[in-house]
Amino acid sequence: MSFKILKKSTKSQARLGLLKTTHGVIETPFFMPIATRGSVKAVTPEELKALGARIVLANTYHLYLRPGLEIIKRAGDLHRFMNWPGPILTDSGGYQVFSLAHARKITDSGVEFTDENSGQRHKLTPARAMEIQKILGSDIRMALDECCGYPVTKAIAEKAVNRTTLWAKGISKFLKISKQLTFGIIQGSTFRDLRQKSLDEITALPFDGFALGGLAVGEPESKMWPIVKEFGPKLPDNKPRYLMGLGKPHQLVQAVKYGLDMFDCVIPTRNARHGLLYVWRKNPKSKNLRFAGNSFYSEVRIKQAKYKNDFKPLDKYCQCSTCQNYSRAYLRHLFMANEPLALRLATIHNLTFYLYLMKTIRCQVKLGRL
Amino acid sequence: MSFKILKKSTKSQARLGLLKTTHGVIETPFFMPIATRGSVKAVTPEELKALGARIVLANTYHLYLRPGLEIIKRAGDLHRFMNWPGPILTDSGGYQVFSLAHARKITDSGVEFTDENSGQRHKLTPARAMEIQKILGSDIRMALDECCGYPVTKAIAEKAVNRTTLWAKGISKFLKISKQLTFGIIQGSTFRDLRQKSLDEITALPFDGFALGGLAVGEPESKMWPIVKEFGPKLPDNKPRYLMGLGKPHQLVQAVKYGLDMFDCVIPTRNARHGLLYVWRKNPKSKNLRFAGNSFYSEVRIKQAKYKNDFKPLDKYCQCSTCQNYSRAYLRHLFMANEPLALRLATIHNLTFYLYLMKTIRCQVKLGRL
Repeated sequence: MSFKILKKSTKSQARLGLLKTTHGVIETPFFMPIATRGSVKAVTPEELKALGARIVLANTYHLYLRPGLEIIKRAGDLHRFMNWPGPILTDSGGYQVFSLAHARKITDSGVEFTDENSGQRHKLTPARAMEIQKILGSDIRMALDECCGYPVTKAIAEKAVNRTTLWAKGISKFLKISKQLTFGIIQGSTFRDLRQKSLDEITALPFDGFALGGLAVGEPESKMWPIVKEFGPKLPDNKPRYLMGLGKPHQLVQAVKYGLDMFDCVIPTRNARHGLLYVWRKNPKSKNLRFAGNSFYSEVRIKQAKYKNDFKPLDKYCQCSTCQNYSRAYLRHLFMANEPLALRLATIHNLTFYLYLMKTIRCQVKLGRL
Repeated sequence: MSFKILKKSTKSQARLGLLKTTHGVIETPFFMPIATRGSVKAVTPEELKALGARIVLANTYHLYLRPGLEIIKRAGDLHRFMNWPGPILTDSGGYQVFSLAHARKITDSGVEFTDENSGQRHKLTPARAMEIQKILGSDIRMALDECCGYPVTKAIAEKAVNRTTLWAKGISKFLKISKQLTFGIIQGSTFRDLRQKSLDEITALPFDGFALGGLAVGEPESKMWPIVKEFGPKLPDNKPRYLMGLGKPHQLVQAVKYGLDMFDCVIPTRNARHGLLYVWRKNPKSKNLRFAGNSFYSEVRIKQAKYKNDFKPLDKYCQCSTCQNYSRAYLRHLFMANEPLALRLATIHNLTFYLYLMKTIRCQVKLGRL
């Protein structure tokens, strides 16, 4: 068994576990920083490791187009290409084909698209998505699914559910013979009955883990949370449960309470590059607070003029090298002057915040407080 | 005495020395990475220190306009603002006013210009340039000079020499009472008699060191080297000699042979950001070699297609973290994908190359081989 539950909360659906992969064992619940093109933007693998990241997510679509599989194959695999010795999860490429690719054509056999740069036509089938991820050598690969945007009609969402099941069945014969873990994805948009149908069909297949996909794609939180609340706990208990693409710090805490174990999101890294930083707050009277883990936090927009002469560290409770070495005034200056160091210092902080949050969450589940 | 010569070469004019500054003693000859806006682009002060950088150069003009003196004053000084505990040299701001500023007006009292961003009018006088650099708190400050471009008529070059002398005399009363070292600058473009006149006038003043300015501003090397060769050795023997704005690796070696002790240049850092990297070569039959120190080197344009499948380290003789951890193929991929990590890995390598070159040069002077 690659997944072992160490403890279940009695106060919520939260679980503490261990996920065993080819490149290491990871404590759940965990968060995956995004290394879209084989690099978590602005930081090195050594830094990631020092920050406490145990696993990163890389995007199959981007890597498939650039640098291309041939180069990664010749490097050995993605781990060796990017010099990250820890576990990697790759997505199937489907989500990006649906959201980014040109001249897209979906059929039951797969999805065709045009690479805008080369003008070349590509076809991604369920089997090809597995094969590509095998070449990338990721520890966890995702089944090809059809992900709908929001809003979507029920008819279209149902078609996507059916196709996702068809595709999942098509690859189920590969699952048992691979060292890579393979996860199936539940679709169904915000329709309860479609979610139930998708969950029933996908979890009937011998995947190593299951994901809720097609959420955090633009729907209001009031439509998303009922789905997570109902279907998170319904995912098989003995397999890791992955909520794709979420989210803000307090949302991660909520999702853990609904029984989810794995998360990925561009928020900490992308927001960092735009100067939006997360800081812990101990004074509950501060403005615009959110509660996450066992503390409050708020957002700092470091480019605001009020930080011009602010020589305090970004976050006085944070142990990251950014907060230990630089002032808010200097960080703001770096952003205003478009200095490349700004991206790095901000990314280091936000990732530290997220990884520390996940550690706090695990600790709280362990102590029976979440 | 802030400067002490440890050894003079018998084979050339090269000297080995120690320059004592408020923030540390530096072995000469040395190279200063450029921290234009208070950050060596894409690397942290801790990294710089680990690479072997002992001193950085910051640009008064840029810092004066952004973030502005008030903020740096409140931080304490530039060292504290940017968290660099080592020595800093600041230029006077003059060079950038001449090359970058809008609506420039030069008179004998100083130079006026408009800040394009704010529309504000500023005046830089010789005394004000000293005062600004005092607020920045640099270890070495430069006198305000008038730097001509190339080509320039003799009449204009002479006017600039006279004004540079006038300005230098105006601040000479500040020199003895400051903890900061202050350097005077010799102008005169490529005219031998003007260089001699400028040298006579400037070196008569009690500066702590002297610089050859107005070189590497676009003139052909055939016009530059005779000036460096003649006037490098004529600069006072007991003071540090600084060749401003030079240069490529083999040029630094040549300039050391002509008796120069200090260098600064954007080449290693700017070229790094454009994917132009310096690598050592031991096989003298390789193409496009240059000789520097005791080795050959060549330039690698990492974006070229031939590096696509090249899994060798960038420079097999280099000990930097980039060469130890990443392949040429991965570096190329980062550049082609516009990943911010590319800038950093390339900068780390090129600075390591330059700083190692200077170490080799010092070692060679010590061993009597240069």
